[in-house]
Amino acid sequence: MKINILGCYAATPRSFTNPSAQVLEIQNNLFLIDCAEGTQVQLRRNKIRFSRIRHIFISHLHGDHFYGLIGLVSTFRLLNRDTELHIYGPKGIKEIITLQLKLANSWTNFPLIFHELTSKQPELIYEDDRVSVSTIPLKHRIYTNGFLFKEKLGDRKLLRDKAEEYNIDYTLFKSLKKGKDVVSEDGKLISNHLVTVEPSPPKSYAYCSDTVFDLDIVPLIKGVTVLYHESTFLEVDTELAFPTRHSTAKQAATIAKEAGVEKLILGHYSTRYDNIEKFRIEAETIFSDVILADDGKEIIVE
Amino acid sequence: MKINILGCYAATPRSFTNPSAQVLEIQNNLFLIDCAEGTQVQLRRNKIRFSRIRHIFISHLHGDHFYGLIGLVSTFRLLNRDTELHIYGPKGIKEIITLQLKLANSWTNFPLIFHELTSKQPELIYEDDRVSVSTIPLKHRIYTNGFLFKEKLGDRKLLRDKAEEYNIDYTLFKSLKKGKDVVSEDGKLISNHLVTVEPSPPKSYAYCSDTVFDLDIVPLIKGVTVLYHESTFLEVDTELAFPTRHSTAKQAATIAKEAGVEKLILGHYSTRYDNIEKFRIEAETIFSDVILADDGKEIIVE
Repeated sequence: MKINILGCYAATPRSFTNPSAQVLEIQNNLFLIDCAEGTQVQLRRNKIRFSRIRHIFISHLHGDHFYGLIGLVSTFRLLNRDTELHIYGPKGIKEIITLQLKLANSWTNFPLIFHELTSKQPELIYEDDRVSVSTIPLKHRIYTNGFLFKEKLGDRKLLRDKAEEYNIDYTLFKSLKKGKDVVSEDGKLISNHLVTVEPSPPKSYAYCSDTVFDLDIVPLIKGVTVLYHESTFLEVDTELAFPTRHSTAKQAATIAKEAGVEKLILGHYSTRYDNIEKFRIEAETIFSDVILADDGKEIIVE
Repeated sequence: MKINILGCYAATPRSFTNPSAQVLEIQNNLFLIDCAEGTQVQLRRNKIRFSRIRHIFISHLHGDHFYGLIGLVSTFRLLNRDTELHIYGPKGIKEIITLQLKLANSWTNFPLIFHELTSKQPELIYEDDRVSVSTIPLKHRIYTNGFLFKEKLGDRKLLRDKAEEYNIDYTLFKSLKKGKDVVSEDGKLISNHLVTVEPSPPKSYAYCSDTVFDLDIVPLIKGVTVLYHESTFLEVDTELAFPTRHSTAKQAATIAKEAGVEKLILGHYSTRYDNIEKFRIEAETIFSDVILADDGKEIIVE
């Protein structure tokens, strides 16, 4: 599982920082999460192949999370994309994008499929053989969802040496991976656990931005491998957090601790701070495994 | 008169080039012309004060000319702007911008005034004491206007030494600048031409992008000081120009020559070319005073 941070600063793009956008690579899917102005340039700079992106998840309709979407959709068109593009986001996103395409008299050649979200309850919005995506309803100034990406439990891992030692025909390997007992070439029933081991535990990623401090999300993200939780402010500016429905680094760490996650990524920093290291220091007073998001950073989760 | 090129490449923004946007400084006005994705970052990089921009002119609703507008409007809001912002552009631009502000639940605090254009005839769209702006109807794939910025003839220039020599009271200097004859302290009638000279000839700037090669615009831009004319292609790719309603460098130079302009700025280069110097070489076979636009370039017209 790999997370490429394309942008992780709040509010306006600046000369050398970008607002929210990131790419999650999970089980051969490349999911784009949020898409602020400049995202397509950040994709190029980070050498991410545009054609591999088939699903885009937009948390909410504040500009620093989606103003780059129309440009990216238009660029897909210029690149002669023909594969489907799925966009998941709040109701209204379809009207914004289609209105702009219509006025430019430039409809896409590829199927552009909108999945507009309105529910205030968590819901499954994408699923394939290996991964599922659900919403995490967040409390912000406007309708907002986080997203929970979960790997499914994979096949059992075959111990090939053992399988050969027990003289099992290779045509039965698939059954072994599915957990079945099989009969060897010698006619013996071989118990599955002798030749396979447990699959890797499935990993999961929860993206929570933007949100006020909200313990209600804890049950939804319980035990996830990696939590990205916004930390717009430091505690010193805590009086700004609630009115703007944002969180502090300490609050983000409290959510991480309560949910028992493995790692916490902080991001969505207000541009008022000169040194993001302060966010780590504050969060680490509550939770130990903190990663600071930064534009261009690649976070690999083994 | 000064032109800051913020972006001058066609189609998609790339890691190190930007689509159309430029700032024209003329008679103390700072006019933003087109506003592609990334324009607000380019304004910062070029150290242009956001607050001085009061009028934005959008040629047409293709993304590479206006996808940065909503982000800039939102940033003006975050910067607590309170002065009026006027936006001139094709009908539909108001709906696009207001829809996005509405869905973000973030109306602007400053007056945001749209001037939607629909006429296919040239029209005066802005005027103050010192400058006027008119449309230049262009032929492109969708409704498009160029813009003609013209200084007005200023006051006559006072020869202060001469005025003192003729013993003219300073309270009459304003009348002298307006071309009137005045009476000196000695009671003599002083002819205006003895103490003033002609004002500087007014400068003018024509922005023509995007457009097919179109001699119909020649009378509208006759004798302008500086013409910016798109040159998406080189002659070698001339078969691409007409179907896409774009021009070649040679065609841009032909327009410059026919209109008898003083200087030609080329831009809106297709990203298929590795070296924009080829555009200059091609244009100079037709017209001698060619300037290549490039991102970050400042062009001062004395």
